[in-house]
Amino acid sequence: MQALAEQYEEEDKLLSNPVIDAMMQRKSIRSYTDQDPSEELLETVVRAGHQAPFAAQLCSLLLRRDRKRNPFGAPWLFTVCVDLHRMEQVMAVRKWDRRMSDLSSLLLGIQDAAYVAENMVLAAESLGMGSCFLGAAPYYAHKLIEDYNLPAKVFPLVQLAMGFPAEEASPRPRYPLAFALFEDEYPAFAPSQVEEAARVMDAGYLAQDYYQSMNAKIPLEEDREDAFTYDDYSWTEHISRKLGQWGVDPEPLLKQFEQCGFRLTEPLP
Amino acid sequence: MQALAEQYEEEDKLLSNPVIDAMMQRKSIRSYTDQDPSEELLETVVRAGHQAPFAAQLCSLLLRRDRKRNPFGAPWLFTVCVDLHRMEQVMAVRKWDRRMSDLSSLLLGIQDAAYVAENMVLAAESLGMGSCFLGAAPYYAHKLIEDYNLPAKVFPLVQLAMGFPAEEASPRPRYPLAFALFEDEYPAFAPSQVEEAARVMDAGYLAQDYYQSMNAKIPLEEDREDAFTYDDYSWTEHISRKLGQWGVDPEPLLKQFEQCGFRLTEPLP
Repeated sequence: MQALAEQYEEEDKLLSNPVIDAMMQRKSIRSYTDQDPSEELLETVVRAGHQAPFAAQLCSLLLRRDRKRNPFGAPWLFTVCVDLHRMEQVMAVRKWDRRMSDLSSLLLGIQDAAYVAENMVLAAESLGMGSCFLGAAPYYAHKLIEDYNLPAKVFPLVQLAMGFPAEEASPRPRYPLAFALFEDEYPAFAPSQVEEAARVMDAGYLAQDYYQSMNAKIPLEEDREDAFTYDDYSWTEHISRKLGQWGVDPEPLLKQFEQCGFRLTEPLP
Repeated sequence: MQALAEQYEEEDKLLSNPVIDAMMQRKSIRSYTDQDPSEELLETVVRAGHQAPFAAQLCSLLLRRDRKRNPFGAPWLFTVCVDLHRMEQVMAVRKWDRRMSDLSSLLLGIQDAAYVAENMVLAAESLGMGSCFLGAAPYYAHKLIEDYNLPAKVFPLVQLAMGFPAEEASPRPRYPLAFALFEDEYPAFAPSQVEEAARVMDAGYLAQDYYQSMNAKIPLEEDREDAFTYDDYSWTEHISRKLGQWGVDPEPLLKQFEQCGFRLTEPLP
């Protein structure tokens, strides 16, 4: 546990205040109480979200308060969208058409939307609520178009479940700072540095019994033999199985973008 | 100023705490004092940034502390990158190759990186510092590859200037909540609603003399005649000129992605 000890030592040096604390304490919540958050909480979380920077205002939020359909029975499910439809309507007030390509517009809008979402996560945390990002929305955009009657030029980027937490959890580990911040030049990593970063992550998740408690092992495809048990299955193996097996063909995702009215490689007609 | 009055009234209903306050007070800072922030501040801002959710850890940060070259003479310039190079090295520890397409990997990584960046913005705000996003990095990625010796599979998403603020400013206006949050179904906007949203935004920026004080009017291309003066040039016209004139051809941006080693429409070789 040398790696973990070093990480804790590193964190002892950090400055602290309620904002930093909210960031350092935040973790995904996958179980929610029966309490329904107030309208005041809703308006505060959403308004604080929208004050996020970048200010092209390309983010709109869909809310569903149906616990029966929401993941983890959460009282709120937000679908965070990149919204060029609304932007085009605002531009029409000034008699402008959008000509910026879908690719450039999405690159702006995804940032807008992500900054809004992260503000919402932290606002919720500061108000005693919990949240969990759900990343699959882009892969079933066609379904969300139906569910929410989305017009063309709206792209559902990510979903965010939110409510009062019914579970306790510790914040998850992160890479050591020296593996995340590079001054003046991108370094060549020594193998020992990569292994050390992997060790920090794996030891941290194992100490929390993270994957075992969720029974979240990703199965191996193509008849690979699985040598891992929950005694050693941890972050590096988990993320490797995702990026090593999932989303291999870009076509399905490109098709979802198209169903939302976006063509990534073409100028607007 | 009816619209502004309503917006202030809306904000009176919000809950408040140091985290919400940091969000609501935050604005871009384009002038910095001579004071150099401490190493403690640097580690806190970066560490709190990296605790952001999504946890594929696809974000890495480049730092430059050269005031002469940094925008606004800021003591710190961060280049926030989506880093699949480092991920591939970590995967190699577990004997995995990345097979997830560049498109899917970038969609994950851009969110990772944006959540980190927004945490950094708020952490800085809470520590008395200011920041400004600079969105052009993707369009000169080839230059950043040279400047920072970036390996393939690293995409510079956005830059973030940071330091102690040498200017006072008010937070910028945002759309009314009813134009930003939709329950259960995406609405058809009444023309009056779109005009009202435009009016709120324009009145807010005009009241702050925002564009005039920065002399930031975007020129009209194609011999269009400019009927706007700084008495009426505001957010809707400004954003319309951006999205109505800039980035029309996706090719240059696609080429930058390629220079970073990413092919958006193809599976990995």
